Amino acid sequence: VITDKTVKLCSGQLTPKQSAEPVGTKLIGKHVVLTAGPTREALDPVRFISNHSSGKMGYALAEAAAAAGAKVTLISGPVHLACPAGVSRVGVSSAQQMYDAVMSAVQKQCDIFIATAAVADYRPESVADQKIKKNNDEMIVRLTRNPDIVAAVAALPEKPFTVGFAAETNDVLNYAKGKLARKNLDMIVANDVSDLSIGFNSDSNRVSVLWKDGQHDFGKRPKTQLAQDLIDFIADIDGRHLGAIGQSVLK
Amino acid sequence: VITDKTVKLCSGQLTPKQSAEPVGTKLIGKHVVLTAGPTREALDPVRFISNHSSGKMGYALAEAAAAAGAKVTLISGPVHLACPAGVSRVGVSSAQQMYDAVMSAVQKQCDIFIATAAVADYRPESVADQKIKKNNDEMIVRLTRNPDIVAAVAALPEKPFTVGFAAETNDVLNYAKGKLARKNLDMIVANDVSDLSIGFNSDSNRVSVLWKDGQHDFGKRPKTQLAQDLIDFIADIDGRHLGAIGQSVLK
Repeated sequence: VITDKTVKLCSGQLTPKQSAEPVGTKLIGKHVVLTAGPTREALDPVRFISNHSSGKMGYALAEAAAAAGAKVTLISGPVHLACPAGVSRVGVSSAQQMYDAVMSAVQKQCDIFIATAAVADYRPESVADQKIKKNNDEMIVRLTRNPDIVAAVAALPEKPFTVGFAAETNDVLNYAKGKLARKNLDMIVANDVSDLSIGFNSDSNRVSVLWKDGQHDFGKRPKTQLAQDLIDFIADIDGRHLGAIGQSVLK
Repeated sequence: VITDKTVKLCSGQLTPKQSAEPVGTKLIGKHVVLTAGPTREALDPVRFISNHSSGKMGYALAEAAAAAGAKVTLISGPVHLACPAGVSRVGVSSAQQMYDAVMSAVQKQCDIFIATAAVADYRPESVADQKIKKNNDEMIVRLTRNPDIVAAVAALPEKPFTVGFAAETNDVLNYAKGKLARKNLDMIVANDVSDLSIGFNSDSNRVSVLWKDGQHDFGKRPKTQLAQDLIDFIADIDGRHLGAIGQSVLK
């Protein structure tokens, strides 16, 4: 598990001959920043609040972006995944740490920001220094809002092409459309996590991609394949051409 | 991750020649039941409250008990560990599921019960069917007590030799002594988790074992070695002889 704040480039000891996939060129010269995994919000030194997230989708997207030639920074909550080759990983635990790491990463020229992390919306108002003793039959925990990372990136004066994820259990498309507009995102990937055969710990996923003027559905496929298809899609339409090209490229 | 309720015997394809350690005989004919790992208490389909616990200590104890000849049932919360060879594992997620699985396992002749799991003391009073939307700056979560698994086992009319763990961040020995008496345990293993070089995700641990009339300290060593030493210790003194033998075996 990576939980502390560490930055390292994961070489993976790749040589051109070992690389199974041909290295793409679509994202050469671009800096892609991604978030992945859950965050953990401490109640005390032993207890925390967290979300279900294996990090698989974010790690697969980071790998696909690197394979397409991008410089990739992956800000990751605690997961049990190896860092993909050629990706710089920053390990964080809480949403506040993730926010700080993202803001630092996007300040240095960022072209595309993809927020896949399942960030805890709330954290305990206070964190106990010592393990809380269970003296009562009931306990009340006051939670306060965490910073909204993807909205903060999308609010930057020179914002990168900003892609959000909406992992929902009901009314997925409508919620995703609302989030797209409310947070000023360029694109949102809608994911129905009530279907246990996709999402979370599954190796497959099925998503719909939405933007201001359109929608494109990606049928169920392995997360690694979906990641390549999504990176291809984002690289092709890109933020600057999204409005102009509109539906035409999205068959 | 194992999260659903499954029971399986993990053969590990061991043959006598592959087995590195000679199989012990101290626990032949005994049934040892253990708990390991964290529990997860759902707030809604995507959020949960949990505890830090890698499960390493419990899995190492299960392996050591099987190597000493015992029939071993391991009730495990969600962890990223392979089931040790020859151990029957029951995967659970919440404290209530762990309680149910333990009560079912100890009803069929159980000689030794070892509770290493970091069970969540509290669970949300109500679990939302759908993902909770973040409409407010503050959120209040009402928690209610979970069943106390090790105390419930120790309260059984024909209780097994019951060993608890006390993972504490402060005043460790005093708290462990209180827990030993309050819960009617036969033995408690006290673990100072404020020291990051031991406990939780570490591969090493240093513990003190306490019982009604004595204490024995196990200095820092790998968790696998500590597990073998603890199983040896428990097998030697055993519940029936604990009072009589007292300090003499505990140099």
